[in-house]
Formats: sequence, structure tokens, C-alpha cells
Amino acid sequence: MSYTVVVDAMGGDNAPEEIVKGVVRAMDDDKNLQIILTGDEEQINAELEKAESKHKIEIIHTTENVGMDESPKKALREKPQASINIATRIVHEGRADAVVAAGNTGAVVLAAANNMQVIQGIERAGLAAIYPTAKFNKESRGAALMLDVGATLKCTPKQLVHFAFMGSYYVQHILNVDKPRIALLNIGEEETKGGEVLTKTYAYLTEAEDLNFIGNVEGKDIPHGVADVIVTEGFVGNITLKMMEGVGDLLKQTGKYAFRKKLTWKIGLALLSGGVKRLKAKTDYSEYGGAPILGLEKLVIKSHGRSNAKAIANAIKAAVRSIEEDVASHIADSIKKFNSQHKMDFLDI
Amino acid sequence: MSYTVVVDAMGGDNAPEEIVKGVVRAMDDDKNLQIILTGDEEQINAELEKAESKHKIEIIHTTENVGMDESPKKALREKPQASINIATRIVHEGRADAVVAAGNTGAVVLAAANNMQVIQGIERAGLAAIYPTAKFNKESRGAALMLDVGATLKCTPKQLVHFAFMGSYYVQHILNVDKPRIALLNIGEEETKGGEVLTKTYAYLTEAEDLNFIGNVEGKDIPHGVADVIVTEGFVGNITLKMMEGVGDLLKQTGKYAFRKKLTWKIGLALLSGGVKRLKAKTDYSEYGGAPILGLEKLVIKSHGRSNAKAIANAIKAAVRSIEEDVASHIADSIKKFNSQHKMDFLDI
Repeated sequence: MSYTVVVDAMGGDNAPEEIVKGVVRAMDDDKNLQIILTGDEEQINAELEKAESKHKIEIIHTTENVGMDESPKKALREKPQASINIATRIVHEGRADAVVAAGNTGAVVLAAANNMQVIQGIERAGLAAIYPTAKFNKESRGAALMLDVGATLKCTPKQLVHFAFMGSYYVQHILNVDKPRIALLNIGEEETKGGEVLTKTYAYLTEAEDLNFIGNVEGKDIPHGVADVIVTEGFVGNITLKMMEGVGDLLKQTGKYAFRKKLTWKIGLALLSGGVKRLKAKTDYSEYGGAPILGLEKLVIKSHGRSNAKAIANAIKAAVRSIEEDVASHIADSIKKFNSQHKMDFLDI
Repeated sequence: MSYTVVVDAMGGDNAPEEIVKGVVRAMDDDKNLQIILTGDEEQINAELEKAESKHKIEIIHTTENVGMDESPKKALREKPQASINIATRIVHEGRADAVVAAGNTGAVVLAAANNMQVIQGIERAGLAAIYPTAKFNKESRGAALMLDVGATLKCTPKQLVHFAFMGSYYVQHILNVDKPRIALLNIGEEETKGGEVLTKTYAYLTEAEDLNFIGNVEGKDIPHGVADVIVTEGFVGNITLKMMEGVGDLLKQTGKYAFRKKLTWKIGLALLSGGVKRLKAKTDYSEYGGAPILGLEKLVIKSHGRSNAKAIANAIKAAVRSIEEDVASHIADSIKKFNSQHKMDFLDI
């Protein structure tokens, strides 16, 4: 079986160099992998040469490209030939099986929503972030997935239930977690908490036999890894995820601050460096490949803006895995089944 | 000038011992302070004796009391004589000028809402948490206030604007921060982000001349201290605040984990202990006194459930400060002024 992944060569802080290097690395490891790159042909070819690529790679040339700080809506409207627009469009046209992109998150999500179709029965796609959890906690499996973290603002119970199905399937089949524990992010554990949307969602999730729903979790539970999939509206997910990044940045700064301060602290930090490296590995985005956009006809993987070659190669591997496992159609099946069982209930949402 | 603070002697993990000790400590330091304690008279008297109190303290005896894990609504309904119910009631009756309570957060907020009046012109009270921010960041002033963190779920723009006024006044006059920087928690910095409620709130805050509104901040900005007051709906504030606590717990566990693991790490941690102590001081709840409930006729300070004597004494000092500064009526004035200037605009919210 051979498969084609389209990669936006121009997205991310380290594009196109690290993107192209990551592509070459992924192709070195997988003989069945075909790649299409969208972006500036001249720049891409220069990078391919530098990376000593011997692979046959199709390039779709475009000089337009959305910057990391541009307004996604405006940029995509004004740049119809932007590399991310073309990448998502050719997947929809059937020329590729999945997308990997490290650019402006809003632009990736919006281009995917504009150019690709949602799975039948689903109203909204969700952006799912994979984040590290406390490894030494008994319950933790080292990483967990939270969705939605930014493709929506507010959600209906139906949309949240669909997110639960999408996340569950992805974590089980791509991250290899057996019977993923699904939780709803809320302000308390009781099923009556959080207002009408969340109490209804809670009730539906309890009824979903194919899901291992463990109930509500609170903010304090997020880093501890008590759940494998945390379901929430995009607004809350976005704030939470970015706060986690903020705290991570802060820890790095604390280290530097301590380092400048005192000799004893310097020595202490040096001795602790084994532990710090472990922590770094745990919080290293490149290990997880990136954030999948779930609920679309094909998988889109949004790699972190700071992605290096390794992160891109891992994202491509996750994309290949999702093609092999046929993630999109399996998600479609499970949601179709659930929708048909709960048709009446959903009509009034 | 003398003032009376009513303290719930039975609330919190360390009640009544640490509560009573904190009260005695606060009275030792302030000759004008009168205290009323609500709770079990026998237990309270035993603790007063242990603490060698020489003060005249009024005790309102009750054997009912809301546990930390009880459902607030149910508990308050079934226990009309609960110590927190009585504490908030006597403030409303004018027998005391402020409340300090370390018990079940939901019960404190609900008892206050049930028994006390909101300031005229305000619809909802807000629970405001004070949290530590990165001291070594240039922008940081060491602590910031976020509200609402749990008294509401969703809010109207009007309610959010009122929270901004309440937070601004409190931070300026009780925490002594000059011209507090007010920010709105959102998923992006642009004023068009976050949906109708937040874009309207943004517009109103921009118009409020008496506020130093600095615009939207994102999740990553929360721990960095770029704002002194962060305004958000209760649901989001609750999730965020609890996540911060979860990350704090995790850091402590990481320390213990490292400690068990390896001799070099043990030595490293020992050398770093000066730094760890600094960090601990920064995240020590007892320094800040507690979370004020703002927008009510009198101030209620919700101390952390784990409060010790020092935290209770600091909470009482913050309460005294708020009485001296007449926080409630100043908030009322500033909101009255803003409401009258924007009467027409608010009618359609």
C-alpha cells in the first residue's frame, strides 16, 4: 500500500528548511510514502539539495503563504494561492490522503474547514492537542489529548459528544492507548455541574456504550493524566492549552533566573540536569507529532509552529498511521451508530 | 475607629484550631479589631484557651456546619444554622462589617449570595482569586487578581465590565497597585476575538475612562503577570485557577519524585533549596489573605481551605483594610457613574 501526504513547506517558524528536512527523514524511513510539497519551488529545491534528498517529491509551486502573525481570515481571503490553501484543497480533490502543516494555527484550521468536508453526521471539526501528563502519577499514561482547543468557540452537546468519539478513536488507534478514558472538563465532578450544555453532554456520554466515559474532571486534573481524552469547548480548551504553554515557558525562565543568581544554585541545576532532561522530553512537542484536526474527510495534522525536522517527521508518521487505520471512516461509523441510536434526543438540542 | 469582622470558626481543613489561632494573632496586632466567631462554642473556647487568648470575643453558637465535600446547595438548605449561614446573615443585619471564611467555596459563595445584598446597579457578585505571577518578568508585580473564578458560569458584557471595576478598585486600594492594568481573557489579542459577549465587553472597557484597560490577554499571559486584573466568566476562571493549582501540586510531586530517585538529584535539590523556598513563598496562599467576593454590600473573604493561622490573620487584615477603605461603597459609586454614562448601550445586552 502506498499513500500520499501533502506537507505545507512554508508553514512554521523554521520553514522551509526544517520542514523539508523532516520530509526527507520520513521518506528515508518509509518506502511506501509519497510526498507532495506546497510552496516556493526554488526555496524547496534548494533545501532538498541541502538535505541530499534522493526521493521523488512533487512540488506544487506557489509564492503566497500565510505568516504566523497574520489574521487567518484576511490572509486566506487575500491569498487564495497560499500554500496551506492549496494543501487542503488537493486533499479534498483526492490527490493526497492527509495534510501536515506547521503554520499559523488559525489559518490551518480555517483552510481545512473551507476546503475540506466534515464527516457525514458531524457538524464541526475539532482541533485536538496532545499534551504531556505527570508520568509518576499512577493514573497517567504520559500524554493525553484535549479537544477542542480552538476550532470552535461554544459547542452544543451533540458537538461535544462527537468530539468524545473522535478523540477516543484517535487515542486508541494512533497513540495506542487501550480503552481510552474519556472525561468532560467541568467546574465540579457532579453530573449536575456546569449548566445545561454540559449536563446534557454528560447524560449522552453516559449512554454511549462504545465510550469509556469516566465523568467530569476539573482544571486541577488536566496535568495529572487522570483521563486520556478531555472534551471541552474550543474557548476553554484554547485558554487552558495556552496557559499550559505559558507555565512551561515560565519554568524554563525560572531555570535561567536561578542559573544567573547563585553558584550553589548553578551546581544544583547541573546535578539535576538528568531530571530536567526527562522533563524536557516529556514536554517536547516533537515527540507527539502535532495536533490532529478531527472530524474532516481526511486527517490534518497541525504541527507546532516551532517544529523541527524531527517533529515534522513524527507528524508525517502519525498521518501515515491515520491513513492505514482509516481514522476518518471509522470515526464516521461510530458517530453514525451513536446518532442513529439517539436521533430523537438530539433533535431538541 | 473600631470594626467588627465575623469569622466562620468551623470552615476549612484546619478548623477550628488554626482559625481561632489566626483570630487571636490578628487581635494581638490590632487593638481596634472586634471579632465574632460562629461555630461550636465548646470547641472554640477550648482553642481560645490553648491559644492563651486574652481578648473579648463574641461567639455565636451553632453545631451545624458545611463540610468541605458537601453539596453547597443541599447542605445550606438542610442546615439553616450552619456557621457560614449565620456569619453572612449577621453581616447583612449590620452586626459586623466583613466576613472571613475558609470553608467549602461553593457554600461560602452561595451563603453570601443568599444572605447578603449585591451593590445597587450590580447584577452578580464575583469571586476574585489572587495568584502569584512570575516575579522576574519585568511586567509582573508579583501577584494578580482574576475574577470571576466561580460565582457565575456565563456572564453578560455588563457583568464582565462590572467585574473589571470591582477588581480594579480592590487591587488598587487593598493590594496597593497603582493604576491596575485590566485585561480581558480571550483566545487572541484582537478586539474581534471570542464571540459577541467578549467583543461587546472589549468595546465597553475601552470606553471606561476610569479603567486602565490594556486589551485582551491569552492563556499563556496568565502566569506571566502582564495584567493586574484578569476578567473572565466564572466557568473559564474556575478551570484556569484550578489548573494552576494542579500544576503547582505537580511541581511539588516532581520534587519528591526526584528526591527518591538518585543521589545526584538529592544533592542538586538540596543546593537548590534556597530557590525552592523562594518559589514556595511566591505560591504560598497564606501571603495573600484569600479570595474576596466582590460586589456585595460588605466584603467576604474566602480563605483557602488549607489556611493556617497566618493565612487567617492575613485575611482578617485584608478585611479590615477593605472596611477602612470602604471598598463596597466606592465600587458602588464607580459603577453607578459608568452605568449612568452608558445607560442606553446596556439596555440591549
